[in-house]
Amino acid sequence: MSQPLHIGDLPALLVEAAVRTAFAEDFGLAGDLTSQATLRKDASATATLSTREAGVIAGLPLVAAAFRMIGESVTFEASRRDGDRVAAGDVVGHVWGNARQVMSAERTALNFINHLSGIATLTRKFVDAVEGTGARICDTRKTTPGLRALQKYAVRCGGGWNHRFALDDAILIKDNHIAVAGSAAAAYRTAREFAGHLVAIEIEVTSLRELEEVLEAGATIVLLDNMDNDTLRQAVALNKGRARLEASGGVKLDRVRSIAETGVDYISTSQITMAAPPLDLGLDVSIS
Amino acid sequence: MSQPLHIGDLPALLVEAAVRTAFAEDFGLAGDLTSQATLRKDASATATLSTREAGVIAGLPLVAAAFRMIGESVTFEASRRDGDRVAAGDVVGHVWGNARQVMSAERTALNFINHLSGIATLTRKFVDAVEGTGARICDTRKTTPGLRALQKYAVRCGGGWNHRFALDDAILIKDNHIAVAGSAAAAYRTAREFAGHLVAIEIEVTSLRELEEVLEAGATIVLLDNMDNDTLRQAVALNKGRARLEASGGVKLDRVRSIAETGVDYISTSQITMAAPPLDLGLDVSIS
Amino acid sequence: MSQPLHIGDLPALLVEAAVRTAFAEDFGLAGDLTSQATLRKDASATATLSTREAGVIAGLPLVAAAFRMIGESVTFEASRRDGDRVAAGDVVGHVWGNARQVMSAERTALNFINHLSGIATLTRKFVDAVEGTGARICDTRKTTPGLRALQKYAVRCGGGWNHRFALDDAILIKDNHIAVAGSAAAAYRTAREFAGHLVAIEIEVTSLRELEEVLEAGATIVLLDNMDNDTLRQAVALNKGRARLEASGGVKLDRVRSIAETGVDYISTSQITMAAPPLDLGLDVSIS
Amino acid sequence: MSQPLHIGDLPALLVEAAVRTAFAEDFGLAGDLTSQATLRKDASATATLSTREAGVIAGLPLVAAAFRMIGESVTFEASRRDGDRVAAGDVVGHVWGNARQVMSAERTALNFINHLSGIATLTRKFVDAVEGTGARICDTRKTTPGLRALQKYAVRCGGGWNHRFALDDAILIKDNHIAVAGSAAAAYRTAREFAGHLVAIEIEVTSLRELEEVLEAGATIVLLDNMDNDTLRQAVALNKGRARLEASGGVKLDRVRSIAETGVDYISTSQITMAAPPLDLGLDVSIS
Amino acid sequence: MSQPLHIGDLPALLVEAAVRTAFAEDFGLAGDLTSQATLRKDASATATLSTREAGVIAGLPLVAAAFRMIGESVTFEASRRDGDRVAAGDVVGHVWGNARQVMSAERTALNFINHLSGIATLTRKFVDAVEGTGARICDTRKTTPGLRALQKYAVRCGGGWNHRFALDDAILIKDNHIAVAGSAAAAYRTAREFAGHLVAIEIEVTSLRELEEVLEAGATIVLLDNMDNDTLRQAVALNKGRARLEASGGVKLDRVRSIAETGVDYISTSQITMAAPPLDLGLDVSIS
Amino acid sequence: MSQPLHIGDLPALLVEAAVRTAFAEDFGLAGDLTSQATLRKDASATATLSTREAGVIAGLPLVAAAFRMIGESVTFEASRRDGDRVAAGDVVGHVWGNARQVMSAERTALNFINHLSGIATLTRKFVDAVEGTGARICDTRKTTPGLRALQKYAVRCGGGWNHRFALDDAILIKDNHIAVAGSAAAAYRTAREFAGHLVAIEIEVTSLRELEEVLEAGATIVLLDNMDNDTLRQAVALNKGRARLEASGGVKLDRVRSIAETGVDYISTSQITMAAPPLDLGLDVSIS
Repeated sequence: MSQPLHIGDLPALLVEAAVRTAFAEDFGLAGDLTSQATLRKDASATATLSTREAGVIAGLPLVAAAFRMIGESVTFEASRRDGDRVAAGDVVGHVWGNARQVMSAERTALNFINHLSGIATLTRKFVDAVEGTGARICDTRKTTPGLRALQKYAVRCGGGWNHRFALDDAILIKDNHIAVAGSAAAAYRTAREFAGHLVAIEIEVTSLRELEEVLEAGATIVLLDNMDNDTLRQAVALNKGRARLEASGGVKLDRVRSIAETGVDYISTSQITMAAPPLDLGLDVSIS
Repeated sequence: MSQPLHIGDLPALLVEAAVRTAFAEDFGLAGDLTSQATLRKDASATATLSTREAGVIAGLPLVAAAFRMIGESVTFEASRRDGDRVAAGDVVGHVWGNARQVMSAERTALNFINHLSGIATLTRKFVDAVEGTGARICDTRKTTPGLRALQKYAVRCGGGWNHRFALDDAILIKDNHIAVAGSAAAAYRTAREFAGHLVAIEIEVTSLRELEEVLEAGATIVLLDNMDNDTLRQAVALNKGRARLEASGGVKLDRVRSIAETGVDYISTSQITMAAPPLDLGLDVSIS
Repeated sequence: MSQPLHIGDLPALLVEAAVRTAFAEDFGLAGDLTSQATLRKDASATATLSTREAGVIAGLPLVAAAFRMIGESVTFEASRRDGDRVAAGDVVGHVWGNARQVMSAERTALNFINHLSGIATLTRKFVDAVEGTGARICDTRKTTPGLRALQKYAVRCGGGWNHRFALDDAILIKDNHIAVAGSAAAAYRTAREFAGHLVAIEIEVTSLRELEEVLEAGATIVLLDNMDNDTLRQAVALNKGRARLEASGGVKLDRVRSIAETGVDYISTSQITMAAPPLDLGLDVSIS
Repeated sequence: MSQPLHIGDLPALLVEAAVRTAFAEDFGLAGDLTSQATLRKDASATATLSTREAGVIAGLPLVAAAFRMIGESVTFEASRRDGDRVAAGDVVGHVWGNARQVMSAERTALNFINHLSGIATLTRKFVDAVEGTGARICDTRKTTPGLRALQKYAVRCGGGWNHRFALDDAILIKDNHIAVAGSAAAAYRTAREFAGHLVAIEIEVTSLRELEEVLEAGATIVLLDNMDNDTLRQAVALNKGRARLEASGGVKLDRVRSIAETGVDYISTSQITMAAPPLDLGLDVSIS
Repeated sequence: MSQPLHIGDLPALLVEAAVRTAFAEDFGLAGDLTSQATLRKDASATATLSTREAGVIAGLPLVAAAFRMIGESVTFEASRRDGDRVAAGDVVGHVWGNARQVMSAERTALNFINHLSGIATLTRKFVDAVEGTGARICDTRKTTPGLRALQKYAVRCGGGWNHRFALDDAILIKDNHIAVAGSAAAAYRTAREFAGHLVAIEIEVTSLRELEEVLEAGATIVLLDNMDNDTLRQAVALNKGRARLEASGGVKLDRVRSIAETGVDYISTSQITMAAPPLDLGLDVSIS
Repeated sequence: MSQPLHIGDLPALLVEAAVRTAFAEDFGLAGDLTSQATLRKDASATATLSTREAGVIAGLPLVAAAFRMIGESVTFEASRRDGDRVAAGDVVGHVWGNARQVMSAERTALNFINHLSGIATLTRKFVDAVEGTGARICDTRKTTPGLRALQKYAVRCGGGWNHRFALDDAILIKDNHIAVAGSAAAAYRTAREFAGHLVAIEIEVTSLRELEEVLEAGATIVLLDNMDNDTLRQAVALNKGRARLEASGGVKLDRVRSIAETGVDYISTSQITMAAPPLDLGLDVSIS
């Protein structure tokens, strides 16, 4: 069965840079002293990567890169794919090769896959919660510094969608910008004039009055900031399909379905990137 | 009131590298399009950084660096210090300067302080939970790749203690190493022979029998892996103060005090670095 | 008089990285041997940066950074701004400070401003050529490797607009993608389904039939590939304002106005980034 | 037929660094969204790299590196060599492999080879124009920042010769340095005293009187700055073969042969690096 | 015969970074001009790496990496191992492949192995000098900037032991710290309170009185600073095996045995890293 | 009194990169634990940098950079200059500022100045030994990897001269290249044809017959490889001032004057960069 198209790819360049950073952090100036002290230089290891709890997998390219980059002797083969749902105890991959190298890369590989699978798993819970409503769960720029590309990939693995990646790939007009411009409509028009034709523009509104104003100014994507479900419903009605609507602000798992049922198109939340607990996967190693 | 000595410092080199990485990720090739579109080049902003919930602050040097590195026009002054307990609504700092620059650095600054204060806050909960028992809460190498130095600093801000930083600054002998060596005692002696005199050695045991064995071999730091509280208590009794004892494995907040009351010296948990939700701090900006 | 809002900013991070790269390339392991050989360590220089021909200025932040980063003793003050039209002989800035440092940074500063002003100047010729038609001149991803952010900034300084910056900030569906999908409409729908709501999608068509097809599929931005002016006119008529239309392919300065007069919204050309001759600016130095 | 010895090599380190920089710039945080959206993960592509106009090829090592570094699945085979003259329509190489990867690397590969072949082609025009005169065309330090090594290699591919690479590998005494020293002869002697025995020294003169002066001081390489052809001829006569003479300043293609016929040894021009239009090469891709 | 366990590994990441830095320094913008000028592009070379004097080998992973990273055509096979004692004229390895590539990497490879083998050889002289006494020779943080990991590895190859690697992996309390704390005992207690349980603490004392004081405070590792042999002997007697004792300060090869015979456990010296002359190894190349 | 012109400059870019590398190596993930443990965050230090033995100073820009880059609170003022001869006990500079920062940077600063002053001091011994003969002492490419620019600067501080910096800034034809070309004269002519006019060419000869051959071929710089003094004298006689002559191979301090007296122009030796013991300088710190 093929991986959903939706997940897309993670540039190899980023994967390798991330592993290199993690190795540098963990190896310091002398590498894995414990393995050097206790394992023969030519000892071999075989190991199984498996889950200790149910969830969604994300991060296999990082695991593969960690075991590939640690040394030529080591081979990793995944038996599942990013985006797969797994039960507790499922085998996710196998690794074998030089024992010191396998042990040295273990923690780096696990730190990546546990963190990213945690994000995919929590995202999937949000996505499942809104199933059938047509609403899409999306992330924000509230990510852990240095890990944005990886975390947003994990969101896709969990069935979520990415909001903008950075300050330079789309415009998102917020309250401060509106205040300076004098009105939401004025801010929108200024931004429209400024932006190239391949820069999407979203504008945040805090009231139905402001929504009406920006719709009249031609806005095609509107963020409804911190509105209660009733107001969201009225916004959807007032919109009449003109713009795509995104609900944002204080979105929690137990409330997300009721938000989705208001008819908004997108629901964004920083929970999935900033507050996802890790998914527990471990490596069972045997050395000879 | 002075910051507890215990927190130590975060090397400026690491702080600046972290901010540079975060900026690169967020600015891409064109920077903050929204601010460029909607704010005059010479507009000014003043902003207040404050908490939306109670917790412990960590990450002010990163906030300061973000606002310093974004441009010479911007000034940040902290009114609290890392390690401080804060209530919801407390003002943590002030920033003023060029509006585009303040807005461009906002998300980077918040992503750091929210994430790190989240770690400090959860750590503090564990630390408070064991207050009076003499047990110390410490972290692990289960950290988010690329952020280990920062996360371990946040643990210190929360009153916790750092376990080893990397594979090369201490030896931690685990089950696989012991299996290869034939016995825990043999593994310990091999490591002792291998290591320089400034390399600390800890060894993991899974039974009281193994504990006795490594104590006889001269171990001074022992990790008691996944033992229940009764076994931990017996381990403490059997140890008779010979080694420092660390309890590890499945440590959760609701069980941590009972573990501490067994008399162990250290309790380590990956929860504080891998599963801490962010602390909500925000920037209230006014532009003119 | 203030710089047009439209030009936006160049992230300081990129400016400094570009200067650092250029310095590394030019200084090697021993720096400016000629100045060391012939100028006293404490000699002073004053210099005037001026144009030798008419054009549009771009790159002053790089000149400023080169003279700032070469050493604390050197000061640069610009008397014009990026985007300004200049005549031959106009003074653009003044620099003074340690003579060895001024001389060492001279070539780097000039290489930047000559190249980028060349781009701005050629862009401005295209922009002036279409004045009054409402068409906007824009660039492509055909840029000199490593200089994309700077070159696209120079395009803005010349009054042009930026097409997408990179492969990840917008979707541009071309013939190969369409061939695989079976039809332009199918390719468009697949991309629409794949993309997040802040990712703009443009699709390339080569015939009026294909244009009709993608308009019906809901396309909002369409690239008209290599069409003659008659066909472009028919495309504009057929479009009836539904999508924004971009003409591309073989656009040269002498033909650009006639293209603009067909009524298309955007005209993109790689000429302005890949084939712009440098604008001649020089530094007149006096050493004492 | 073997490539002319003269071209030399491009260090692999620089080639890979240049490709990595270009990829980083083009892939951002999410890579080629269009290919991810429209091409199956396991689709294959075959493609032919060919010229759309006549010229000289330069940059094949960069094309090869781009397709090698994009992923293990992709293979590039060149059918021509750098320095080869090509006609419009000539096939320069073939590439095949994973379709997403081929498409992702396409623009990077083309941006390199189009730019560098443009330089080689323009250089070759200058070289051909002076054929038989014995004069050599050479470049300057007026190069696009960050691309000097590549551009100077392209000059060699076009049959040109490299002037110094950087400020630290040779001394070039100009008017400012002479003014400080008091006379050209004094400047030359100071530099000769300063420089190690493997540092070549060239000195710029603006009159025949100055030429005579530096020849008497022992100069072996002299730059004749902005002289008309008559003066150049007199300089050659006056030199009597003592020093190698380089003509520089305002050299254009239509005047270069007449300069060469004055008998100078070298003619240097920034045109070939700063003002060369790209050579049009394209990739015809077929995806299955 | 297998390499002594004691030597441990050098992280591949560091090896490759070191070679990359060395190549960048030696290749500049144009690589090995001499080989390009005089050797055909497809010429082959075979070469033998051998010693010109007796010593101990260290640095083979760097030699291997230099020849591997210079290009795919080159193969290096070591016939000895790091830590091996060699006589003058011993063959240490063979290399064959493209002649330009072999010649380009030669100096880098030799600079590494000559320098590091020099350190290993001098270390071995110190180690041999104390043979049978039980004292261990160890290094310090007095290393050549940028080369600490490699130099400390070379010390291990020579049979020596590593002191702490960096400021953050162990605490070493010196006179200044003690002066601030008021007494050695106070400084020790402060540090003990500050440090995590995996951070070793050593304290420097300058008199027997201070030694007694820190032993009573519980110190387990003590540095005896600049004591004469009589005082060292009294320190050993006074210690009664409580702490491990390190002698430091002015240690030279001709005095080291007498120091060792005082009964101290460790003798540290900066001579082995800062003052070791290179071991003469050369490459005999044959090109065809 | 002004520093000799001859020393030239060390590019600030290289100085800062070297300090950053050294800091990264020494600070790891947590910085100077000892100072954090024992010194108050706001303690102040004043310190004097002075010599413990006589020699020549080199490396003050690195000391200055280390104390500047460690933090804004710290100030360093040099009282001597690079290239100055110093006696034991001479004060070289003063530093004051935050105590933790001063202590953290101390080892880095000393490692640089001790190593580089060691090189300057040994170079000066060679230079003094040949005083009055007219011969110049110069270095080689046998340098410690990563430190070439700094070490060659130190050679200049000691009164020595730099041989080529890298493989790409001059041509040095050795026995292997000659063997391939068939004769020294053929190799020289090939290289002359290959090289640009600003690339110096030196050729190594091993006999008087070869010397005559290359002189006839027009060589202007000749390396006399491993010749005894008698042969060197004959080479000087045979040369009759046509080329500059460099003696190389097995040059030691006790033989260098006799070599110089043969009349050669340059004497090159790897001893000064690879085998110079450090000069002992220390920092006397007082903390309050």
